Amino acid sequence: MSYSMPELIGTKRDGGHLEPAELEWIIARYTADEIPDYQISALLMAIMFRGMSQTELAAWTDAMLHSGDVLDLSSTDMPKIDKHSTGGVGDKISIPLAPLVVACGVAIPMMSGRGLGHTGGTLDKLETIPGFRTRLDPDVFARQLDDLGLVLAGQSETLVPADRRIYSLRDASGTVPSVPLISSSIMSKKLAEDLDGLVLDVKIGSGAFMKDVASGRELAETMVGIGESHDTPVVGLLTDMDQPLGTEVGNANEMIESIAILKGYGPDDTTELTLRLGEEMLILGGVAADRGEARSQLDAVIASGSALDVFARVIEAQGGDPRVLEDQSLFPSADNVHTVVAKKSGFVERCDALAVGRSAVRLGAGRQAKEDEVDPGVGISVQAKVGDEVQEGDALATVSYNTSSQLAACLPVLETAWILADEPPAPRPLILGEVR
Amino acid sequence: MSYSMPELIGTKRDGGHLEPAELEWIIARYTADEIPDYQISALLMAIMFRGMSQTELAAWTDAMLHSGDVLDLSSTDMPKIDKHSTGGVGDKISIPLAPLVVACGVAIPMMSGRGLGHTGGTLDKLETIPGFRTRLDPDVFARQLDDLGLVLAGQSETLVPADRRIYSLRDASGTVPSVPLISSSIMSKKLAEDLDGLVLDVKIGSGAFMKDVASGRELAETMVGIGESHDTPVVGLLTDMDQPLGTEVGNANEMIESIAILKGYGPDDTTELTLRLGEEMLILGGVAADRGEARSQLDAVIASGSALDVFARVIEAQGGDPRVLEDQSLFPSADNVHTVVAKKSGFVERCDALAVGRSAVRLGAGRQAKEDEVDPGVGISVQAKVGDEVQEGDALATVSYNTSSQLAACLPVLETAWILADEPPAPRPLILGEVR
Repeated sequence: MSYSMPELIGTKRDGGHLEPAELEWIIARYTADEIPDYQISALLMAIMFRGMSQTELAAWTDAMLHSGDVLDLSSTDMPKIDKHSTGGVGDKISIPLAPLVVACGVAIPMMSGRGLGHTGGTLDKLETIPGFRTRLDPDVFARQLDDLGLVLAGQSETLVPADRRIYSLRDASGTVPSVPLISSSIMSKKLAEDLDGLVLDVKIGSGAFMKDVASGRELAETMVGIGESHDTPVVGLLTDMDQPLGTEVGNANEMIESIAILKGYGPDDTTELTLRLGEEMLILGGVAADRGEARSQLDAVIASGSALDVFARVIEAQGGDPRVLEDQSLFPSADNVHTVVAKKSGFVERCDALAVGRSAVRLGAGRQAKEDEVDPGVGISVQAKVGDEVQEGDALATVSYNTSSQLAACLPVLETAWILADEPPAPRPLILGEVR
Repeated sequence: MSYSMPELIGTKRDGGHLEPAELEWIIARYTADEIPDYQISALLMAIMFRGMSQTELAAWTDAMLHSGDVLDLSSTDMPKIDKHSTGGVGDKISIPLAPLVVACGVAIPMMSGRGLGHTGGTLDKLETIPGFRTRLDPDVFARQLDDLGLVLAGQSETLVPADRRIYSLRDASGTVPSVPLISSSIMSKKLAEDLDGLVLDVKIGSGAFMKDVASGRELAETMVGIGESHDTPVVGLLTDMDQPLGTEVGNANEMIESIAILKGYGPDDTTELTLRLGEEMLILGGVAADRGEARSQLDAVIASGSALDVFARVIEAQGGDPRVLEDQSLFPSADNVHTVVAKKSGFVERCDALAVGRSAVRLGAGRQAKEDEVDPGVGISVQAKVGDEVQEGDALATVSYNTSSQLAACLPVLETAWILADEPPAPRPLILGEVR
């Protein structure tokens, strides 16, 4: 069967629905280089305005998912659950979460991405471990999952090639901010991991793609819907990203915070979010009946050190030096430190995640463009978070930097992040909602 | 100055306005092959949904207009007025109109296109004159305009190259039906002709791009607005295209009808529309003060034969055989004739322009695709138009064809064109509105 692309684009443009066979044809022919980019970008723009029905989304995601290899991880006995975050500032949760959940008996075939813009990437953080490899062959990936229940890898080139092409086309054609396109991109990659379930952390706030709860909920519901169409249960938590998560923003320093969480002395917010997401993963994996039972198991694997042991074995299996778990001087570091201080006394009313994230990119901790390299040792430690009381001259944050130009680029943005008030602000919860 | 295309696309996508400098940059860089098609097609789709402000349209049209050569016809003493039709079935009006208006003292530097789909093209019709050339060098074009006041040429490759690129991209990317894109495409080409004024014939009805008066009026008003921004007065007539115009649909047969109009014995509707458009052109050109005066002048150049003389000289100058004006056997013809007859008696309630136009394409008189060749001798003569009373067995149309496969393809569509009723239909006026 063959179709006319201008006609299919016209159908979507005029508010009609595309048939599953038509959507499959588009994805297959585009992946085979038989449809030019200019037709796909016009279609994507029409989708931005017209949206996609649940039937369209299921077919579109399914076609992307089958545009390349799909993992076969059936030899793993454990239930396979993954977690995805829509991206935030200081969001290192995947790193402590994965060993914790695996230590409780759930396997995680995690494929992560690199950071772009003000949100960091899990791969960049993991690669601050000396020797750690994130490019794994599919057979190595599957074997390690069988052996250890956990793989922390980069996305395979052979999985979901349609998404890679469409993603870079969206980036270049002004068609990024679309709920169906974001949802299908995430879900096609996650469903290609041969999962039994998925937990989503949908970030909401200034530092997140979604600025309000309503749009975060729409995104989460759309992904839960795609999961239903593929018989894969998906649970979404809507969580705060108006201020940075935890204290550390950067790469090596986020690894150090992650290890602290695994050892039981991380910051309250990152620890709580890690455990809350872990609860959902244990329940989805069927190893805990309810949140209370799940929380007990997670607390136990922190206390016993078995979660840390899982991480050590994974680091070793992927070529890294597990001594980083005990000796943080093995991580890259920066030569200099600058302290940003409060210019008056008061309560922190706002610590803007977007400003902190953008200043971290300027510092060299993140990328403006895909080609950029990150400086793994630089970072920002946030010392005054929303609700904290500070005196004039107290540290709001410390900036670890290597060159004066990094600092000079970072500071003007970073200093705009804090708003101090005479009264303490109303508390804002960390978990803003759930979708299942 | 340089801009980011994804950001400019995002501005338009989100309902913002693009600055004139931004629009100029887009057109100039696209024409220079420095912006890829996939960014322009996404922008065009965003324009389809968001529209363009009058300021945006003026800048966009101006940038297209200056993407290549602009004619300098200042050596012509006469006022230069052109006419453009949005395209219809049986619309040969440009051909008799041009010599009539020129005979009254207004110059016409007419550049026409080829037919595509169910609307025919002026060039295809003119080229049925043996020897007639429509590709003219710019200096030949200008000299002939000085000498004769009339040139009937194809679009020059060097004029408005941005429009040619954008037009073919729109065709391939589902971004054709957009009032600002249609308007700027037409107006950039017409303004590149160095005109003193322009008369638009905006077709409305089943055989036209615009199906109702409101959308035709919007298109006409948009083009009048672009004209204002360029200090070029534009007058738009909204005219009926629910049934074919005149009696002939095809190429050689439309030329024969055109010559009949020039000689004063053409069908009522095509004659009236020719004169009505001619009135506006004479008034815009300043050679007549009002419609009455203009009509008298037009009637006089028909009666005196001076309009026919203008046409003869232009045909001769462009390499054609002017004897076609007196001997229609010199035109290409078809070998066979088939008559479509009424299956019952009654009044013609409908003679659907779209059905007649589509059947003419199937007959070979028009093109399905740009690469197709037309058969110049085939055509349809419409014998029963709306309001006519017919008896069972009377001819509704005659089809001139060369091969039986042409006829077999044409007839099933052509036969659906007529609806006969017991009562005569309410009369529908030819001129549905004016915009100036």
